[in-house]
Amino acid sequence: MKLNPGLRRFIPTRIELKSPVPADIEIAQEATLKPITQVAEEMGLLPEELELYGDYKAKVKLDVLERLADVPDGKYIDVTAITPTPLGEGKTTTTVGLSQAMGAHLGRSVITCIRQPSQGPTFGIKGGAAGGGYSQVIPMEDFNLHLTGDIHAITAANNLLSAAIDTRMFHESTQSDTGLFNRLCPKDKKGKRSFARGMIGRLEKMGVTERDPDLLTDEQKAKFARLDIDPDTVTWRRCVDVNDRMLRGITVGQGSAEQFELHTNYYISVASELMAILALATSLEDMHERIARIVIGQSRAGEPVTADDLGIAGALTVLMKDTIKPNLMQTLEGTPVFVHAGPFANIAHGNSSIMADKIALKLADFVITESGFGADMGMEKFFDIKCRYSGNLPDVVVLVATVRALKMHGGGPKVTAGAPLAAEYVNENLELVEKGADNMLAHASIAQKFGIPVVVAVNRFPTDSDAELELVRKIALQHEGIVDAVVADHFSQGGAGAVELAEAVVKASELPSHFKFLYPLEMSLKDKIETIACEIYGAGGVDYSPIAEQRLERYEQLGYGNLPICMAKTHLSISHDPELKGVPKGFRIPIRDVSASVGAGFVYPILGTMSTMPGLPTRPGYYDIGIDFETGKILGLN
Amino acid sequence: MKLNPGLRRFIPTRIELKSPVPADIEIAQEATLKPITQVAEEMGLLPEELELYGDYKAKVKLDVLERLADVPDGKYIDVTAITPTPLGEGKTTTTVGLSQAMGAHLGRSVITCIRQPSQGPTFGIKGGAAGGGYSQVIPMEDFNLHLTGDIHAITAANNLLSAAIDTRMFHESTQSDTGLFNRLCPKDKKGKRSFARGMIGRLEKMGVTERDPDLLTDEQKAKFARLDIDPDTVTWRRCVDVNDRMLRGITVGQGSAEQFELHTNYYISVASELMAILALATSLEDMHERIARIVIGQSRAGEPVTADDLGIAGALTVLMKDTIKPNLMQTLEGTPVFVHAGPFANIAHGNSSIMADKIALKLADFVITESGFGADMGMEKFFDIKCRYSGNLPDVVVLVATVRALKMHGGGPKVTAGAPLAAEYVNENLELVEKGADNMLAHASIAQKFGIPVVVAVNRFPTDSDAELELVRKIALQHEGIVDAVVADHFSQGGAGAVELAEAVVKASELPSHFKFLYPLEMSLKDKIETIACEIYGAGGVDYSPIAEQRLERYEQLGYGNLPICMAKTHLSISHDPELKGVPKGFRIPIRDVSASVGAGFVYPILGTMSTMPGLPTRPGYYDIGIDFETGKILGLN
Repeated sequence: MKLNPGLRRFIPTRIELKSPVPADIEIAQEATLKPITQVAEEMGLLPEELELYGDYKAKVKLDVLERLADVPDGKYIDVTAITPTPLGEGKTTTTVGLSQAMGAHLGRSVITCIRQPSQGPTFGIKGGAAGGGYSQVIPMEDFNLHLTGDIHAITAANNLLSAAIDTRMFHESTQSDTGLFNRLCPKDKKGKRSFARGMIGRLEKMGVTERDPDLLTDEQKAKFARLDIDPDTVTWRRCVDVNDRMLRGITVGQGSAEQFELHTNYYISVASELMAILALATSLEDMHERIARIVIGQSRAGEPVTADDLGIAGALTVLMKDTIKPNLMQTLEGTPVFVHAGPFANIAHGNSSIMADKIALKLADFVITESGFGADMGMEKFFDIKCRYSGNLPDVVVLVATVRALKMHGGGPKVTAGAPLAAEYVNENLELVEKGADNMLAHASIAQKFGIPVVVAVNRFPTDSDAELELVRKIALQHEGIVDAVVADHFSQGGAGAVELAEAVVKASELPSHFKFLYPLEMSLKDKIETIACEIYGAGGVDYSPIAEQRLERYEQLGYGNLPICMAKTHLSISHDPELKGVPKGFRIPIRDVSASVGAGFVYPILGTMSTMPGLPTRPGYYDIGIDFETGKILGLN
Repeated sequence: MKLNPGLRRFIPTRIELKSPVPADIEIAQEATLKPITQVAEEMGLLPEELELYGDYKAKVKLDVLERLADVPDGKYIDVTAITPTPLGEGKTTTTVGLSQAMGAHLGRSVITCIRQPSQGPTFGIKGGAAGGGYSQVIPMEDFNLHLTGDIHAITAANNLLSAAIDTRMFHESTQSDTGLFNRLCPKDKKGKRSFARGMIGRLEKMGVTERDPDLLTDEQKAKFARLDIDPDTVTWRRCVDVNDRMLRGITVGQGSAEQFELHTNYYISVASELMAILALATSLEDMHERIARIVIGQSRAGEPVTADDLGIAGALTVLMKDTIKPNLMQTLEGTPVFVHAGPFANIAHGNSSIMADKIALKLADFVITESGFGADMGMEKFFDIKCRYSGNLPDVVVLVATVRALKMHGGGPKVTAGAPLAAEYVNENLELVEKGADNMLAHASIAQKFGIPVVVAVNRFPTDSDAELELVRKIALQHEGIVDAVVADHFSQGGAGAVELAEAVVKASELPSHFKFLYPLEMSLKDKIETIACEIYGAGGVDYSPIAEQRLERYEQLGYGNLPICMAKTHLSISHDPELKGVPKGFRIPIRDVSASVGAGFVYPILGTMSTMPGLPTRPGYYDIGIDFETGKILGLN
């Protein structure tokens, strides 16, 4: 076991369990918080490696990786799930509960790594994302609100790039090549022109080695100064971390002094490529390089135009420099948690950051990290994109299953958020469970394909019968890729409810892992897409739209063929069609369109329509939110 | 003298002066920083009153005001300026230098209060706002970038309100009164409807005392549920803290599922009414009340629609709850600085926060606070708006003058940012100085009108001759409102260069102050406007456009007549016309339009066109900005 280099031994925070389980916010607000300095010390961080943000959250400096460079990594556990109902199956809750069990009950050194949620849903459809019941990350207000400002920094950087793109088109539309060049490289007091730091990237791309602006040829000057962006090809979008449906389609440039209008739209901030870059960066310098490579669109000649061509990569990195440091918080039972990055799962890879996992692996014996949605979605991307870029290899997969979701897969009535559950879900129904269990086994097989042992965590709900839970366990144990299956009740019991699960995970982590990627990067983009479609989703084949065909060909020409694939797909089915429950077969995957996040480093085929901007319902969650001025407590953040 | 309740005596940070003065960023990055915990302790804050944001900045909790409720306030010094050139006359630099002199050289207990700058200009036209030379606030990177995220929180809250307004119109356009009401107050599991916390404000406004939704009359239900916002009257705007000119005129709602389009525009975030509210709030509860009162537009029946009608005031307050705590930083010589709020001076009052000043007045013997632009602009608003809401009365006005600006007022050639200065500004020219000195005296007379003694600070530039500086001083001393006039050289000497100025300010603060407001709130809006126009600007009268006439009448009807006036006027002239330098006479002030920031608490007449969204030049400052990955230093943030 890794020695804890901390000055203090880990002291679990005691929780008092109530029954029935109170509201999440009530539990969170009554919880005892350790000072974050104590959490940090207990996990072996030095005081100078922390940047405090108040008393209960801190950023961890990347220097720690240098100090611990020679320490072997801990075990790397990914928590994923079966195909969920629209209500979610408690994956974050299980991730947190499992950590509480390991740290506060088994005395293991453990760190949890999860994503920061977008503020959009927090104020839209009621529901925080800090776990639930007696398995939560606290303080939940900070978790669900600004945290340390990472998403705000991404929004600021994203929108600075948008302004830079459009304003550059504006200035190019009103100025000659010479005028542009002379303004870009103005004379100083001594009449001398020079290139700014941010201009070197474009010069290098042009193959110009001359660094005296006056010595460039006229042709070079013109090429340097005129990006000649084709407005119809610009794929970079402004963003805001608010559910603002009116921004799904907009026209900008209607001020009286503008030269042209542009039709565009906003993304929610977490869908920004910058968020995916934050999650995938392996150092500040790597983040800068990825930002520089971002392709915002094409020139009229069809060449990709990058952030570096705009001379803005350095400034965007400066705006995002603090985001790369993972945010440290704690669970209800006092174990450490990194909350870091939160790429929108539908058009990005949906996993928390490489940096948080890397630091955690040096500090703890067990790192419990969560991947987005099911094994077909976040887990596949976790392996093929995140682990590939990080070089960190996973040891165990925890597959969260619920009786409720299996019943749905077995043919139970439609489950809709906000509507009451049908009787099938509230009363015992072994037949539906049994019929639906195939979905769980299919997800286990996906993990098995990567060579990783699977532990099934059956997340207990109050309406589940013992017979139902036992049936899930029994079926799971018959699958050869599943090394154990355990019922866990961390929602109502905290870590104590997941001790058996934690023991199973520890045991599984001692098994040999034979990890392999699903595909080599050298495969063509189409072959990679088809491998995922057939081997992971179980499709019979793939159909490409003409635009998808065309883009894939172009991406291969441009040298993006070696990037991994990030499928933009529904999470509500293993297939592309959210209506197909269980384990669909015989379907073909339609690729409607394809895009590339060249900076983040993946190509994403789009299956169906992906909303990148949620809306607000008639009665948004914000109606409930407020402050009790007598106690200072925040109300209504559930 | 107030006793310093701190555990530690103040230890000035020693600075080593170089000549010629290096670039601001170079001085800032070579500076010695005290841990902010030490700065806090030296100023008498308790550890539990701090929320650290890293090692060198912290938020100060408002609890300190309760602890020190019985301590008498320190002296309250406002720093203002004569009418500046477009280059600025070093008001922030003087504010900082004066503080360094008082604290590090005279051993006085002093706190500086200044505004947080917008990130827009930082990446647009090169230029930070942390002071300059050897009078700066550090770390300048934090100062110029996110600081503690206050502006980001404002942006988030502002845009949540925008989404709430538009989405409410969307839902109202597709649903019946009954449908709306039933969705706003849905049945719970027991079939019972209830009003959310955020709905009580609207019920109270309607005069409905019933709190059981089912017992409202149909008419009440309809009125409650349908705000019936007239889209053409919505004045609330989305915002972004980026110079994005394409957002000066936009159309939203062009997504395929929307019901209507809206023509609108973005403000830069610091122009948001929420920023003005942050600056004027006197407690968290007061902030909530001001937010609730925000008028976003009118119903089709012509009634004002407020944030409270939308049920969102609590949520916006939660988003902004941390912004109200002032941000503590330090000067190059280790004296404490509050950096807090930064309302856009052109459509708001342009002063830093009431909260920072209030806390500072309890902690220090001298509080040096800066007001925006000249005495006609920020100082008048400081007195008539900020001091009126805070109840804190000022003791001394420091009026910053420069030889350069006086020469411009005396008839010197036009001064343009970015272009080299004309010979008149670089060589001695006593005639121009003498001719232009009237502008300084006019500003002094404005301060005198409020009953406050004035100390003139002649901010020395390297090109100024001793004779020019002495002439300014001599002319100033002949004015009866000016109690002293001192040449200061804090830019190149730090606090040592402003010791004489500091002594003059200490002396002036011992004089009796006979502060009085310019106008009583009971005056009509028009009388207040005319009082400012004639008594402060020296106008012959005021001309109202028809729309301004109409709005003023309506505001009186709506009960906004008692609000103070916040003139939206150019800062480049005492008049409304930036071309009129010196002390213009015989002009009439044209009021083009009038708006009301009912939440913040002022009516703002608009003189000329006010840009609320700057643009980026062809070569923006971001080209220079980057990180040196070897040293970790930020480059190019000047």
